[in-house]
Amino acid sequence: MISLEQIREIAIASASKIVLLVIDGLGGLPHPETGKTELETAHTPNLDRLAGVSICGLSDPVSPGITPGSAPAHLALFGYDPLRFEIGRGVLEAVGIDFDLKDEDVVARGNFCTVDQDGVIADRRAGRISTERCAQLCQLLGGVGIDGAELIVSPVSGHRFVAVFRGQGLDAELSDSDPHREGVAPRAVSALSSGAERTAQMANRFIAQARLVLADSHPANMILLRGFSKRPDFPAMSQVYKLKPAAIASYPMYRGLAKLLGMAALDTGDSIEEEFATLARHYGQYDFFFVHVKPADSAGEDGDFDRKVSVIEEVDGLLPRLLGLEPAVVVVTGDHSTPAVLKGHSWHPVPLILHSKWCRPDRVAEFSETACARGGLGRFPATAVMPLAMANALKLIKFGA
Amino acid sequence: MISLEQIREIAIASASKIVLLVIDGLGGLPHPETGKTELETAHTPNLDRLAGVSICGLSDPVSPGITPGSAPAHLALFGYDPLRFEIGRGVLEAVGIDFDLKDEDVVARGNFCTVDQDGVIADRRAGRISTERCAQLCQLLGGVGIDGAELIVSPVSGHRFVAVFRGQGLDAELSDSDPHREGVAPRAVSALSSGAERTAQMANRFIAQARLVLADSHPANMILLRGFSKRPDFPAMSQVYKLKPAAIASYPMYRGLAKLLGMAALDTGDSIEEEFATLARHYGQYDFFFVHVKPADSAGEDGDFDRKVSVIEEVDGLLPRLLGLEPAVVVVTGDHSTPAVLKGHSWHPVPLILHSKWCRPDRVAEFSETACARGGLGRFPATAVMPLAMANALKLIKFGA
Repeated sequence: MISLEQIREIAIASASKIVLLVIDGLGGLPHPETGKTELETAHTPNLDRLAGVSICGLSDPVSPGITPGSAPAHLALFGYDPLRFEIGRGVLEAVGIDFDLKDEDVVARGNFCTVDQDGVIADRRAGRISTERCAQLCQLLGGVGIDGAELIVSPVSGHRFVAVFRGQGLDAELSDSDPHREGVAPRAVSALSSGAERTAQMANRFIAQARLVLADSHPANMILLRGFSKRPDFPAMSQVYKLKPAAIASYPMYRGLAKLLGMAALDTGDSIEEEFATLARHYGQYDFFFVHVKPADSAGEDGDFDRKVSVIEEVDGLLPRLLGLEPAVVVVTGDHSTPAVLKGHSWHPVPLILHSKWCRPDRVAEFSETACARGGLGRFPATAVMPLAMANALKLIKFGA
Repeated sequence: MISLEQIREIAIASASKIVLLVIDGLGGLPHPETGKTELETAHTPNLDRLAGVSICGLSDPVSPGITPGSAPAHLALFGYDPLRFEIGRGVLEAVGIDFDLKDEDVVARGNFCTVDQDGVIADRRAGRISTERCAQLCQLLGGVGIDGAELIVSPVSGHRFVAVFRGQGLDAELSDSDPHREGVAPRAVSALSSGAERTAQMANRFIAQARLVLADSHPANMILLRGFSKRPDFPAMSQVYKLKPAAIASYPMYRGLAKLLGMAALDTGDSIEEEFATLARHYGQYDFFFVHVKPADSAGEDGDFDRKVSVIEEVDGLLPRLLGLEPAVVVVTGDHSTPAVLKGHSWHPVPLILHSKWCRPDRVAEFSETACARGGLGRFPATAVMPLAMANALKLIKFGA
């Protein structure tokens, strides 16, 4: 597969526009009674009609057989090989709440936990306290002063939070304080490189202070930190593709991820309809739009086959608004499969439609896993989606002479 | 493609079982009279029925267009990229007779050859002496004493043998004594790294002694050694996949190869039926079974189209016994193609059936090259077989968050 560096050499800016519509968790598995997947069950006249004038295929988000998390799956769709471009656990957690990380920030994922009077961990998740309680305790922790850096503590959900150390010359090469098991004391954070000594001391001072501050907050009377990391230095999509990219996503995680790649995260509402309206409103201002539809994945995760079918039908109903904008290239796909029968992400490849004036249509006339398996794109890695979209938008010049 | 190191991070042990049935040389080419391949000609009701409830595809053993040897083709099926995981020629020869190599052994492939009175090679293969004669001469050579190591000489077939140097601190970085042509004298073995000096001297002493011992054994009056190598340090399948793997193979080569990857090589008989019986007998003791059916390849190599058809039909007849064990995942495929019309291995991709509860069946209802080309797995690298089998057995957790 061509690298981002090589794409960058041949990408050119132009007026043509690309819309990448991602129906999260789109791929499915057959319902045991009907033998049809969610997508095959849904009544999707608009998607089927689009498939009929497009080229279709099935993409592997990470590698055949691999079930991706949301971050790697989306990185792949944007052309960043997730086996190469890794995001630290702390950064991922910050991305998940769309926290505005600065380049120099060091961020850790935190858990509230319970320790006994000897300091031994009795519960790594502090009885899974409520998100509301988590927010209160984060406010307490945020008041802890540490020399040499600003400390920001933000709640995520339940017992989870992020701790951000903001200052000059901080280094994220640090070990976890979380021993990843119970019955032992939290570990001291240690520097994994010589440059990280000062940051390690800072983290340990924070942990010591946190223990004092939380002493009376049983069961959340201690913290565990892990996955210290910095905002990764990925090349921006504007540099690689010469695009002016925007993300339309109601869920914080996807806005956060898009911003890591230099996309503008547009304000939008909670509904799919509002996302489509946001696209129409900002259509003149950008030339690449990532539109993210979350509820299909949520329904799949809940094992709710029928709700997933409804979400797909809702998208189908809204599709004409998107097509009415007449983008040069429209891609409709998912980031991964979330079959309702598996109640979670899965490894199954994801159906995809690519429409453009130059797409070389195949004979697929229906948007489904089975039909896409026979599509002109075949089965291909998701990292090929962006090069294919760029090519169809006539935004890639010839490689070599 | 995901690496073994990355697979190792996400593989989990579980009770579910995988059976990988390899019909050696399965893929074929159309018979000039009927236009049907061996697999298409064979009457295979059980394989066809299985295909109907499975996902199918065509796999490339090494890379499109590349005709693989048996070792690389099998390495790929086990998930070890044969372009990265190489086995030395000496080791491969030892593997071929299922010789029990120790980690420290240095092994060379040997030829008996004919030299004239000046020591010049007249025939690199000593007139292709019989395997029986080879065994007698190996016994003679085995009596040669060399300081600092034990010497084991084992016959392979015809003029071929393996020479194993067993001792401490031996180094395989040695040049061949075989000049790979006739009309010149054998070369002295030389050290290719400074640590290999002692082993080079040892090899040269052995060669000198062999010449004396064989002086009266014309035409096999000298030896040539090549491909000095050590047992490769491949990660064991138990470590990579967290599996307890077993191999059922009547041919020594495949048992030897399986053992290099840490599989248990189960005692079995010479017939396909005995191999299936061995599977049933040991089914409770392992969670991964590699079952190897050799005669399809042998028939292809002999150019015997009809015999290859019969072998495939025999496997089809036995298939219900395997399916009756109800493994979580069944894969039926070949290691490579051996079309009878080509009388040898070929580069053609290999048909494959993958069955599990979660396989997302395609509309393929027949096990054949043509039908598999339209299967849901598409055309994919053989190194994806293990990740796909592991995923379908629910033995891989999510990659990334």
